[in-house]
Amino acid sequence: MVTINPDRLLTDLKRLRSFGATGPGVVRLALSPVDLASRQWLVTRMTEAGLDAGIDGVGTVFGRSRNSGPALVVGSHTDTQPTGGWLDGAMGVIYGLEIARALAEDAATKHLAVDVASWIDEEGTFSGLLGSRSFVGDPIEESIRGATNREGQRLEDALEAAGLAGRPRVRFEAGRHVAYLEPHIEQGGRLEAAGKAIGVVTTIVGLRELRLRFTGQRNHAGTTPMAIRRDAGAALVAFIATMNDAFAQLADADTVWTVGRIDLDPGSLSVVPGSADMYLQFRDANAARLQAMESKLADLVRDFNARNRVSVELTTFDAPMEPVSMHTALADHLARAAEAVAPGQWLRMPSGAAHDAQVISRCMPACMMFVPSIGGVSHDFIEDTAEEHIVLGCRVAATAAAAILQEQCAARS
Amino acid sequence: MVTINPDRLLTDLKRLRSFGATGPGVVRLALSPVDLASRQWLVTRMTEAGLDAGIDGVGTVFGRSRNSGPALVVGSHTDTQPTGGWLDGAMGVIYGLEIARALAEDAATKHLAVDVASWIDEEGTFSGLLGSRSFVGDPIEESIRGATNREGQRLEDALEAAGLAGRPRVRFEAGRHVAYLEPHIEQGGRLEAAGKAIGVVTTIVGLRELRLRFTGQRNHAGTTPMAIRRDAGAALVAFIATMNDAFAQLADADTVWTVGRIDLDPGSLSVVPGSADMYLQFRDANAARLQAMESKLADLVRDFNARNRVSVELTTFDAPMEPVSMHTALADHLARAAEAVAPGQWLRMPSGAAHDAQVISRCMPACMMFVPSIGGVSHDFIEDTAEEHIVLGCRVAATAAAAILQEQCAARS
Repeated sequence: MVTINPDRLLTDLKRLRSFGATGPGVVRLALSPVDLASRQWLVTRMTEAGLDAGIDGVGTVFGRSRNSGPALVVGSHTDTQPTGGWLDGAMGVIYGLEIARALAEDAATKHLAVDVASWIDEEGTFSGLLGSRSFVGDPIEESIRGATNREGQRLEDALEAAGLAGRPRVRFEAGRHVAYLEPHIEQGGRLEAAGKAIGVVTTIVGLRELRLRFTGQRNHAGTTPMAIRRDAGAALVAFIATMNDAFAQLADADTVWTVGRIDLDPGSLSVVPGSADMYLQFRDANAARLQAMESKLADLVRDFNARNRVSVELTTFDAPMEPVSMHTALADHLARAAEAVAPGQWLRMPSGAAHDAQVISRCMPACMMFVPSIGGVSHDFIEDTAEEHIVLGCRVAATAAAAILQEQCAARS
Repeated sequence: MVTINPDRLLTDLKRLRSFGATGPGVVRLALSPVDLASRQWLVTRMTEAGLDAGIDGVGTVFGRSRNSGPALVVGSHTDTQPTGGWLDGAMGVIYGLEIARALAEDAATKHLAVDVASWIDEEGTFSGLLGSRSFVGDPIEESIRGATNREGQRLEDALEAAGLAGRPRVRFEAGRHVAYLEPHIEQGGRLEAAGKAIGVVTTIVGLRELRLRFTGQRNHAGTTPMAIRRDAGAALVAFIATMNDAFAQLADADTVWTVGRIDLDPGSLSVVPGSADMYLQFRDANAARLQAMESKLADLVRDFNARNRVSVELTTFDAPMEPVSMHTALADHLARAAEAVAPGQWLRMPSGAAHDAQVISRCMPACMMFVPSIGGVSHDFIEDTAEEHIVLGCRVAATAAAAILQEQCAARS
């Protein structure tokens, strides 16, 4: 078991929290002045930990171990949502810093190479998952050119203003980088409900985002008898009921689907809606189930159109994302570390949220580990995790990190 | 049977249509420049018909017969919706003008007094039903003071700019005004569906406008299992299904209910809605049924709150309107005239829409008569009625007007 320094870990986490602190929460949007200040601070802390650290050409902070490989990359992101919590992303980055320090302090592990990353803009202020996409070699020039934030600032201008334009971008090093570990808060309530402290991630779920547009006939809500209406809103409501039944047949306990938005047109109390849109998202760890749900939805649309005087059209709202499995051997390392540090207090679970790890997994084996979110809350100022869980999670991650690297070193020697 | 002049009727209707003509429709918002120009034209036509005519202090055009009473007021409104049709309101006013002329041209009826009205702002550009409310003596000063149109123009300023501020307002004259007749397009599809030409209105339906606010828990749509969600949007959809079943038990063929607007908060695909609002309107000719529906809704809310982890709160969105019965003897006059002019081509029916007649009925007996709307469409540029129905309707209304006044004269002599 690796010995970490809980005070140092929590002190650094709280110092990072001070950048953009807003009540109990944090507003630290990617490349904002306060985000850039926090990145500068992070470079300093990494340098003090003995890493070769800097901010790259897109804004990612990367601290490279001076030890030769094989190297484990540990990281996450330090940018936040517009109303963000203090741990989402930030915890995984400070875990990486603490793990690098902890391994360096022990004669038995000081030869191991831990590189630490804070990937830029995971939350999509300009372009989601930008830092990890850049790291794996995605063609990001087009993403950068078109990207603006909510205030209309262009990403290119933000990088120029930050003095980052033209700097080299950190990239995956074949031969050196052998594995990626991303510790993160759960952002859901499953660990809390199960009374567990650690989640070992099996899969990052895939998702579909679709729009269903119902077209009927706009009419006077007073003079149009129910029997002759073609009410697009009523049709939408009826469709959801049918869809819920059909999806419940296909779902397992982890399948989720959400109607997050409904627009009735014209949206007046005195007018029978002539058109109605619903926006549907569903997520699952199983690619075949996502496909089955999509097929079922197409069937329901076909049936509906055959039977109703209101028509419905199904279109893709955003690009589909397929599930990404975490690397089994790495997940087993996490499971063994969890059992050693916190016997019986862990479980395996999917990640319902997207993470940089799903991108990084395209160039090397990747794994993720969760600690509980109090009340399951995230993307909110009141997001929090018990300090004992923060410390415990870091012990598990450090222990797994050492084991992963020791195994890699043994394989190479 | 009274003889009207169909060419004169249609020529005047088409001339009025030219004020604000927009494609096949009309945009003639109350007190807009084009509305004021049309009112000036209407005063001229009324004067040419031998009426003492003018625009009053709120904008109502009133043409008073020079015959002594008893007088029948025939009218409706000439202002339109933002995307209005050419007949909604306008037809009833031009019917009044033609009836006054037709009765004056016949020795047998030229002693009868028909006053003609175009009540201002029935459609609520500034304050709905303003002209009729002023006529019956409602305290409208407060309505006038607070009223603005969509562009933020104050009603007081509009009246001042039109040179109307300070003019006397036309008022109900006890002793003279004995009855009110409002001919109108149906604004629904019932006459067309039944193959009839004339509707004799029994009742103007009452209505309720309510908001139901569902409160659950906003959560991440990826990480929150279905089993632990408190999804306000899903609760709203489930409630509507239950409500539809319950209302169907209480309804007759004329009962209507409409969910015209739904707002999910925050309205994002990735967030389980924490709050959801639906806006409900229901209408019926029967006051007891409206009451029963309101009670049933309160029961459903109570049951829902007892059984669900999402709560719902029911509030009044706008003031209730009670049903208004048309005067039976007047409706019978219309029925006899319809049977005389168009045997078997008429029926009795409620009005699902609101009209000035429901206000005027507070000071004198009132009745309404409908002609068919093609496709049931109104409040739309394509609103229309067959010319033969326009002419037929005017014959029925003129015949009924003569009979009503002859009966009144006989009763006084």
